[in-house]
Amino acid sequence: MTNRKSLTEYVSAFTHSLIHLGVTDVVISPGSRSTPLAYACMKQEGLTVYRQIDERSAAYFALGMAKASGKPVMLLCTSGTAAANYFPAVVEAYYARVPLLVVTADRPPELREVGAPQAINQINLFGSHVKWAADLPMPEEQNLLEFLARHLHRSVATAKTEPKGPVHINVPFREPLRIDFEQSYVSRGEMMHFTGELIINKETEGFLQGLLEQERGVLVVGEMTAPMPETFWEFVQNLQWPVLADPLSNLRANVKPDNQHLIIDSYDAILKSEQFKAAMIPDVVIRIGPQPVSKPLTLYLAAIKPKNYVVFDESPMMRDAQSVVTHHIQAAAKSLWQLPIKAKEENAYAVKWQQASKLYWQLVEQHCENELDEGVLAKIFFDELDKCHLVVSSSMPIRDLDTFFKTNRRDVIIYANRGANGIDGVVSTAFGVQAAVKRPTYLFIGDLSFLHDMNGLIASKMQDTDLTIVIMNNDGGGIFSYLPQSQEERYFEDLFGTPTGMNFKDAANMYDTEYAAVHSKEELISALRSHKQKLVKIIEVFTDRQQNVEVHRKLWNRFSEELSK
Amino acid sequence: MTNRKSLTEYVSAFTHSLIHLGVTDVVISPGSRSTPLAYACMKQEGLTVYRQIDERSAAYFALGMAKASGKPVMLLCTSGTAAANYFPAVVEAYYARVPLLVVTADRPPELREVGAPQAINQINLFGSHVKWAADLPMPEEQNLLEFLARHLHRSVATAKTEPKGPVHINVPFREPLRIDFEQSYVSRGEMMHFTGELIINKETEGFLQGLLEQERGVLVVGEMTAPMPETFWEFVQNLQWPVLADPLSNLRANVKPDNQHLIIDSYDAILKSEQFKAAMIPDVVIRIGPQPVSKPLTLYLAAIKPKNYVVFDESPMMRDAQSVVTHHIQAAAKSLWQLPIKAKEENAYAVKWQQASKLYWQLVEQHCENELDEGVLAKIFFDELDKCHLVVSSSMPIRDLDTFFKTNRRDVIIYANRGANGIDGVVSTAFGVQAAVKRPTYLFIGDLSFLHDMNGLIASKMQDTDLTIVIMNNDGGGIFSYLPQSQEERYFEDLFGTPTGMNFKDAANMYDTEYAAVHSKEELISALRSHKQKLVKIIEVFTDRQQNVEVHRKLWNRFSEELSK
Repeated sequence: MTNRKSLTEYVSAFTHSLIHLGVTDVVISPGSRSTPLAYACMKQEGLTVYRQIDERSAAYFALGMAKASGKPVMLLCTSGTAAANYFPAVVEAYYARVPLLVVTADRPPELREVGAPQAINQINLFGSHVKWAADLPMPEEQNLLEFLARHLHRSVATAKTEPKGPVHINVPFREPLRIDFEQSYVSRGEMMHFTGELIINKETEGFLQGLLEQERGVLVVGEMTAPMPETFWEFVQNLQWPVLADPLSNLRANVKPDNQHLIIDSYDAILKSEQFKAAMIPDVVIRIGPQPVSKPLTLYLAAIKPKNYVVFDESPMMRDAQSVVTHHIQAAAKSLWQLPIKAKEENAYAVKWQQASKLYWQLVEQHCENELDEGVLAKIFFDELDKCHLVVSSSMPIRDLDTFFKTNRRDVIIYANRGANGIDGVVSTAFGVQAAVKRPTYLFIGDLSFLHDMNGLIASKMQDTDLTIVIMNNDGGGIFSYLPQSQEERYFEDLFGTPTGMNFKDAANMYDTEYAAVHSKEELISALRSHKQKLVKIIEVFTDRQQNVEVHRKLWNRFSEELSK
Repeated sequence: MTNRKSLTEYVSAFTHSLIHLGVTDVVISPGSRSTPLAYACMKQEGLTVYRQIDERSAAYFALGMAKASGKPVMLLCTSGTAAANYFPAVVEAYYARVPLLVVTADRPPELREVGAPQAINQINLFGSHVKWAADLPMPEEQNLLEFLARHLHRSVATAKTEPKGPVHINVPFREPLRIDFEQSYVSRGEMMHFTGELIINKETEGFLQGLLEQERGVLVVGEMTAPMPETFWEFVQNLQWPVLADPLSNLRANVKPDNQHLIIDSYDAILKSEQFKAAMIPDVVIRIGPQPVSKPLTLYLAAIKPKNYVVFDESPMMRDAQSVVTHHIQAAAKSLWQLPIKAKEENAYAVKWQQASKLYWQLVEQHCENELDEGVLAKIFFDELDKCHLVVSSSMPIRDLDTFFKTNRRDVIIYANRGANGIDGVVSTAFGVQAAVKRPTYLFIGDLSFLHDMNGLIASKMQDTDLTIVIMNNDGGGIFSYLPQSQEERYFEDLFGTPTGMNFKDAANMYDTEYAAVHSKEELISALRSHKQKLVKIIEVFTDRQQNVEVHRKLWNRFSEELSK
């Protein structure tokens, strides 16, 4: 029997520490063993509780929140397979470096590994995919409150230290599980925390300044989850290098007209041209953020093996899938753009990139007037967005984003799950982003990915939201049509196409969302512009897998031809 | 570059070994990295391929198949979070002791932990929840084919050895991933395998025979995934002890009339009577199978601490959540019923159990005539079943099964996931059971559990099936109303009830299944008896959470009173 007084004290101390540590959001899934902590979260001033019945979706919801807010979000579930359902999002958070506080209630030691119900071995449950795992002591007569506060401090500090990531906290509770709601708690002396910055020293500065003087240089910017400060823009204005901006760099929207020409947003198409690639080999490549989505860029860098390929990565586990990076600068990326450099003149090398990019977008405009496929509809969709967040699924949607999201001034902040590039949990991630930013959010997703996490919609039954979901329904796995497997007809539909023949009108009914079926450009625009009346609007765009490949290839081929002229 | 010839040879050797080892079923989720092995599975004679887009559901589907067939079923997915989605079912399989061959395709070593897409650390991915994990060598010019065959042998043998369970095989592939469909393969000298039996020795026999002579003994039978042989029935006829049969013991259906009185199927209700419990303390308890579902039985055994509580468990990790077992016999349960014992006369102790049980079912009949709640409707449903399999979800459905499934002669085989008692993956488990047994299958499930694994229905779009799903929709977590949390009104609906206000008519439309909404006994009977025209029939039964608790308690109270007279 746990004493109700000490149980209440324990969970109150827990939630008070959370507030002190800057954790303000918790996503709870219903269950019994987690009751004391769930009660304390509900009761704790300053904590907002979100709820999701499906723990897999709950974890991706928390991931979306943490990604958009930059702050650790707490998860809470009961013991057993509930906790195992967190695993996919924990893995994604680990590789995407998103801070999560994964709290699993557990049975006490005497009910572990003895055949008791809902009891699994939760110690180190997430293995090498969390930054740290702690098994907390039980609540007891003389609670170890100072230790509890310090250990939560360690957990949150670990989650927030670069490379950020998930931390697992296992909390055993013995029955009875009810707390005393009237019992007050006064937080005792929480420890204060000051975080240092990982910056470069003088020697590294000198080395970098040497490189930055070169003319044939490119700056590659991978995923950035926060908008860049003005200092960054001053730096690239001075540098005058082309900035190859991944669609997740958040450098393609909110860009002042004066800066737009510096952003090369079409390198994925440009680097399909052999002639351009041969002529434009850079002397220096500097990358901040993870590796971009673009396969042509990856292959290009692997092929040319740049003499200087500098990567800023605060983690010793630097990202370099092709083993071509020559300099790993283990420091914050801002060390780069805070470097004092002198303003350079516009140079011929950069101008050639800019001209290629301009040509690309001219062709895209023509292409979009004459064609109708997934890509063209994606372009129309992207062009409509403003004052919103956008979440994009893996597989084809992120590639369409790369191909058709043109640099602009509109206010759009973009996220995707690129830690492990899964198509799972994406609906929930979008709901989580919306919950963090509290403004209109759009989700751009394929039919298989939507189906995979349809349970993400449960979130809309549990709390307020404002989400518009654009589903590109090509009845199956569209990306496989672009891969070598598509050259083999045998088993293609069975193993890769996997058509389900489903549409999501009934799903919309089930969750009481708005719904529009779209087959044309006009229908898409009208569906996007129509006044949103419910919490969730689903726009289902029907396209044809085979046609999508052909129309995409037509654009790329035509552009390569034009570029070679 | 992997040589296509050696790649083809490698995956052909893999699937040939599977056939040799008795693996005949594989569940594949679409993905790219797994392509060579997926092709080989499609091509391999003797292997049946099932498909599921959602890997979490795929794994539970395989679990259901393996549970019903007793044979290891193979899973196959691509690299990345796809594999992490298997985790909940892997955990369940580990504790439920179900053999699974979990095969995850992986990127080659040079693409692991370097920031490559869809690459996570898959080595020991499932931690302590698999019996064994192997990372296979890559296909190469000189394939290690004999080693591959031996290692697959070890994997399958490990999965099949008691306690059975999941084994993880990680298989790295380097691009290109296409195989040569015309290349033939001749299996080379697979190793033969003979499995021994864990049986008791003479000394243990003598000890047991001494116990079995006692009069005040009960035989407790937990979950049994295969029907009992005739020898078992002869044994209990001779023994004349009451057999406390868990609803998953599969001793409550297919029972000959002469044997039915031996089965006590109402002990969960009987053991709520203090008077009965005090008067009927047994001298010997022998249990085969895991601990039964019934909480009253568990609490009773924990309270009386039987002088002799003998458990047959082939695993050193014997199941005894209350630490009251006195003798662990680490041998197959059949060692018990194969013991030669002399036929005993009917004794007073057993007759008292039988009389109590008879009284219980009389009251249940009256109760069902006068009342209308979840339990009563469950009873009507159970009484309709014949020549079918039944899968039951955790939480309230399994408890309603325990309370209302009366011993009978009809042909019903029952399964549930009781390894970790999760409410996840249950829909898929039912589809898997049906796929293994190929006869009409019923699923009895609550609304939250159905919603959690609604993706299980995707299976019906990918292969043939015959499933009737009875959803008890009480709009939320019904079981919490029976727990102490329900005494606290604060936050109850937020944290435990978690009503979604949803019904599943639209889900039925979406998956093109039959659908019937049921509010009365007559509607239920009519929905169950109506000719099934589609692959899946969904019967949604609407009940009221609060009323369900009251009506259940009314029955138990009345019975306790009658039993005390």
